[in-house]
Amino acid sequence: MNPVKVGICGLGTVGCGTVDVLRRNQAEISARAGCDIVISHIGARRDNPKVDTNGLQLSRDIFAVAEDPDIDILVELIGGTTVARELVLKAIAQGKHVVTANKALIAEHGNEIFAAASEKGVSVNFEAAVAGGIPIVKAIREGLAGNRIEWLAGIINGTGNFILTEMRDKGRAFDDVLKEAQQLGYAEADPRFDVEGIDAAHKLAILASLAFGIPLQFDKAYTEGISQISTDDVTYAEELGYRIKHLGLARRTEKGVELRVHPTLIPEKRLLANVNGVMNAVLVKGDAVGPTLYYGAGAGGEPTASAVVADIVDVARTLSAEPMHRVPHLAFQPDALNDTPVLPIGDVVSASYLRISALDKPGVFSKIATILSDADISIEALIQKEPQPGQNHVAVILLTSRCVESNIVDALVKIESLDSVDGKVVRIRVESLDG
Amino acid sequence: MNPVKVGICGLGTVGCGTVDVLRRNQAEISARAGCDIVISHIGARRDNPKVDTNGLQLSRDIFAVAEDPDIDILVELIGGTTVARELVLKAIAQGKHVVTANKALIAEHGNEIFAAASEKGVSVNFEAAVAGGIPIVKAIREGLAGNRIEWLAGIINGTGNFILTEMRDKGRAFDDVLKEAQQLGYAEADPRFDVEGIDAAHKLAILASLAFGIPLQFDKAYTEGISQISTDDVTYAEELGYRIKHLGLARRTEKGVELRVHPTLIPEKRLLANVNGVMNAVLVKGDAVGPTLYYGAGAGGEPTASAVVADIVDVARTLSAEPMHRVPHLAFQPDALNDTPVLPIGDVVSASYLRISALDKPGVFSKIATILSDADISIEALIQKEPQPGQNHVAVILLTSRCVESNIVDALVKIESLDSVDGKVVRIRVESLDG
Repeated sequence: MNPVKVGICGLGTVGCGTVDVLRRNQAEISARAGCDIVISHIGARRDNPKVDTNGLQLSRDIFAVAEDPDIDILVELIGGTTVARELVLKAIAQGKHVVTANKALIAEHGNEIFAAASEKGVSVNFEAAVAGGIPIVKAIREGLAGNRIEWLAGIINGTGNFILTEMRDKGRAFDDVLKEAQQLGYAEADPRFDVEGIDAAHKLAILASLAFGIPLQFDKAYTEGISQISTDDVTYAEELGYRIKHLGLARRTEKGVELRVHPTLIPEKRLLANVNGVMNAVLVKGDAVGPTLYYGAGAGGEPTASAVVADIVDVARTLSAEPMHRVPHLAFQPDALNDTPVLPIGDVVSASYLRISALDKPGVFSKIATILSDADISIEALIQKEPQPGQNHVAVILLTSRCVESNIVDALVKIESLDSVDGKVVRIRVESLDG
Repeated sequence: MNPVKVGICGLGTVGCGTVDVLRRNQAEISARAGCDIVISHIGARRDNPKVDTNGLQLSRDIFAVAEDPDIDILVELIGGTTVARELVLKAIAQGKHVVTANKALIAEHGNEIFAAASEKGVSVNFEAAVAGGIPIVKAIREGLAGNRIEWLAGIINGTGNFILTEMRDKGRAFDDVLKEAQQLGYAEADPRFDVEGIDAAHKLAILASLAFGIPLQFDKAYTEGISQISTDDVTYAEELGYRIKHLGLARRTEKGVELRVHPTLIPEKRLLANVNGVMNAVLVKGDAVGPTLYYGAGAGGEPTASAVVADIVDVARTLSAEPMHRVPHLAFQPDALNDTPVLPIGDVVSASYLRISALDKPGVFSKIATILSDADISIEALIQKEPQPGQNHVAVILLTSRCVESNIVDALVKIESLDSVDGKVVRIRVESLDG
């Protein structure tokens, strides 16, 4: 099978991330796609020192990429709606498939672009345009295709969520956090797109179309920003059992579709209320599936590139395989499965929670600690309970450091054989899930 | 385009849900699929009084469905691994596409089944086999196709999570909650599949294959159940800042792949620690995208049917459209978009948080309450703050009932015009997100 050739327009954060991911994961991506995916042309007004363009065709005029007869897919990562629209329409006219991360372009010109693509028989993919690396477009368009979708609600602007999270966690004022977000590069120098909800409304318009089968209608979305939220409101909301989030909401009602972006109090026990910092999440309610939630990084070079590359793989799979075997059953091509061994449990590394029933007398804990220390296991936390009336045993609860399974199993045999320890030690593995 | 014809084998909870969803959402599903999807044959050893089979071809011998020359897709919902394996292999041999919700079948016989399907040029879809209605197979197989997946961790057995949630929330003992779960129909009469982790290990083996490109190796998964967990451990874990969840974990290491199901302490601030009751969630860590999480109902007739129908739509789209236009850009076929109007914000219904700066004197609150009451808005919660030293205004914070936007806007104008109220009222909408 011939390699699929990609032209990338724009070498900003996402363009740079896309080049990096395609290169770094080349072998895995080919094993999934069923063909090689090659970057063959880059269009950018200037070089990005972070990207090694050695050996690649480079054009300062991005339209040269759309006209390159060699490329199969044009990846539009220049942003904006004017030149980007022209570029995408040009690529379509040249029979190229298009992948874009541009929410404004899709929300404002999607109806026109999709019509042109349908006529020309090419595809336009835009997973990266909504909620960055979260595959939410695919989830709604395909994964929930059996449902009548009733409503959806999303935290779909990371900058806004970062600001609200800092206001809540640290009692900081809006203006103060906004300045930091700008310094960190989260917010644009002109932050209105983020904090006034325009960026979120672009994404919401796209989500609502996918969910309800209505045309893109960004101009009809109601938009209200977060600049008026005070730390007092954050605190009072908390006292009432709520968190304030900047939500995009789309809901079917008997009279029509609600399409609105505004600060919203939501009950603190909802998962959505616990989505913090720059993370995004979208809650979708289908009539059959009930509520489902999709969470991940909504922005940033590599997370957005994750969605761009998934779209590229989608096109490559369609170009390279029989329709029914477009997606391999086990994600990778059957002849590309690897034989990495499954580790025996004795070789697994994890931390442990231990509950030990021990005699309530001096020196017992030191014996336990010595056994663990000899096995190179350290104690990260400890709770020692007072004995119950009439009992001479107490519960000693420990959190240990990470170690190889066989190590702690041996140590537990020694601890259980101590005269001062009663019965079996309860052990439950501990995982921080942050690695 | 000819309708796509479906034969359904098995009329239990999921079979019944699949028939219901296909019928109820027929119009929407056709608009998404680009063709009608028709149930044309049902195979079931006995009738299910919940399903109206009037006008449908019915066979007591399910193998008759596999041999029916009319059907395009055989949906296997009988469960088990012996007859189900024969049925699926027979259907493949007859050139039928297969959709199944059977995790044990895929985990134990998937390698054989996929090889047969590849040879015959048909597809086998199994989204419903893992985490019910959550489109996690599609997310990993397609949505994260650009990533090197490092690890994944999932709450993938609803019964086990229900038991652990009840133990924590209500201090109930394992045996007591298990009995209730059996009465509620969550757990099987023989609950070992759920509480000993076998069901979770089936799903984990599938997820690990999709994530790492290794063959299905259910027999190598380490499995430990939750029957030894005591309420003491749940309490102590909480004191240490953790929750106990029954996790399926798969992780790449330098030496091999970890594949394990066991009770696990995870930090309480993780979203996964806050997935309660019968809900499922899978956390997937990709090298480009970072952590992503997928949450929803992992079992039940309609949630599982949601995934079954999504798989049917997948096949139908492939059969009915040009490969590049298999999935319409906006989920629905361009000629099937509807013109449901977007509601003006004045017609939107929501509850409100109000912060009113009012003079600290008798009668002020009653005037506010009267204005709201006259507008048919009730007060659901109230915080009244003591005045700050030297201030004669206090903050009155209210949560109101749901009402039409224009109603509360009018009421706010009246409240703001009261002599005893200072400046603008702060209003933030409130959404319970439970509807």
